Amino acid sequence: MPVDYSLYLVTDRGILKGRSLFAAVEEAIRGGVSLLQLREKNVCSRDFYHIALELKELANSCNVPLIINDRLDIALAVDADGLHVGQEDLPLEVARKLLGPDKILGYSVSNTAEAAYGEKNGADYLGAGPVYPTGSKLDTVDPIGVEVIKTIKESVSIPVVAIGGISRSNAAEVKKSGVDGLSVISAILGSPQVEENARCLKNIWRA
Amino acid sequence: MPVDYSLYLVTDRGILKGRSLFAAVEEAIRGGVSLLQLREKNVCSRDFYHIALELKELANSCNVPLIINDRLDIALAVDADGLHVGQEDLPLEVARKLLGPDKILGYSVSNTAEAAYGEKNGADYLGAGPVYPTGSKLDTVDPIGVEVIKTIKESVSIPVVAIGGISRSNAAEVKKSGVDGLSVISAILGSPQVEENARCLKNIWRA
Ligand code: NI
Repeated sequence: MPVDYSLYLVTDRGILKGRSLFAAVEEAIRGGVSLLQLREKNVCSRDFYHIALELKELANSCNVPLIINDRLDIALAVDADGLHVGQEDLPLEVARKLLGPDKILGYSVSNTAEAAYGEKNGADYLGAGPVYPTGSKLDTVDPIGVEVIKTIKESVSIPVVAIGGISRSNAAEVKKSGVDGLSVISAILGSPQVEENARCLKNIWRA
Repeated sequence: MPVDYSLYLVTDRGILKGRSLFAAVEEAIRGGVSLLQLREKNVCSRDFYHIALELKELANSCNVPLIINDRLDIALAVDADGLHVGQEDLPLEVARKLLGPDKILGYSVSNTAEAAYGEKNGADYLGAGPVYPTGSKLDTVDPIGVEVIKTIKESVSIPVVAIGGISRSNAAEVKKSGVDGLSVISAILGSPQVEENARCLKNIWRA
């Protein structure tokens, strides 16, 4: 079944300020999130495992695939639908080998050289960005802008999702770059109206 | 080939104060370390992977098995000889399943209930402790003392290594508890005389 990359939520419990991750994800899916990535830092492996196990049940019951950020062991342990690796994670080709051919493997890129590397070494999709400045510590590189996103998208034949600072005010512009989806954190999880946030982005995507 | 648990070094780059991990491990093996565990915290997966890859080559060239702490993905990625999990890591039975039957799997315990659980759920050996107080943040439980170590050892049929605050001044006492080996960090890595530190502990073990 082809993956729907249109609205790709990456989790961050830090910005939930105590709100439940599971309730927020449930709302987000109701609002139109089509793909989910669990991203955890500074948590022990045991907790990561239990959160992943519960999120997988929740997401899969709504036919939304669950991707694990960075941690191949957690992805394998909960039989997640896929893994997302960045430039500081396990090498892409190592991840593909251990993950097997059938799981979704994503790769973070910020230029066409990394995109070419990703396409060649087993990535199913690319997360390209950061498009815009963000407050998130996810970003280790400067914003690359919509033009570079477009160039990356045109340089490969695998799906590309844009990430980094995407909001309802710039989502239409990002879509025009030709990408296959919008990947967001705070635009959905950053305020308590999670379902409404997701629905708004989804409507912009569909417009 | 049976594993030699007699002198089990757990790494901690923090106490090396800039000294090379690889040089220190090489010296430690020359001094008599028989088993090596790579323990890394607060390092990205990419760096963990590269350190593990290099340490595996070094250790295996000296016929010393390399065990990875906590991170099953790193263990799989570098084809390490084994994995060590604690109470906050992946569940033991999940780790065993993903690691396969042939790799060494260790489990941290501090009482006989955990020891029984470990023996039943796939552990090849137990790391019992902490025996004594330590400055290390490895410890989340109070020291259990040599008597409890002895009780744990007598309660299972798999090898048990003692860990936590072991030094040349108490190593003989720990050995008397009947354990299969001494697991140490700072007693070997805590001062620049790494080879001498290891040799001294090894001699106490053999006495
Ligand atoms: Ni549940």
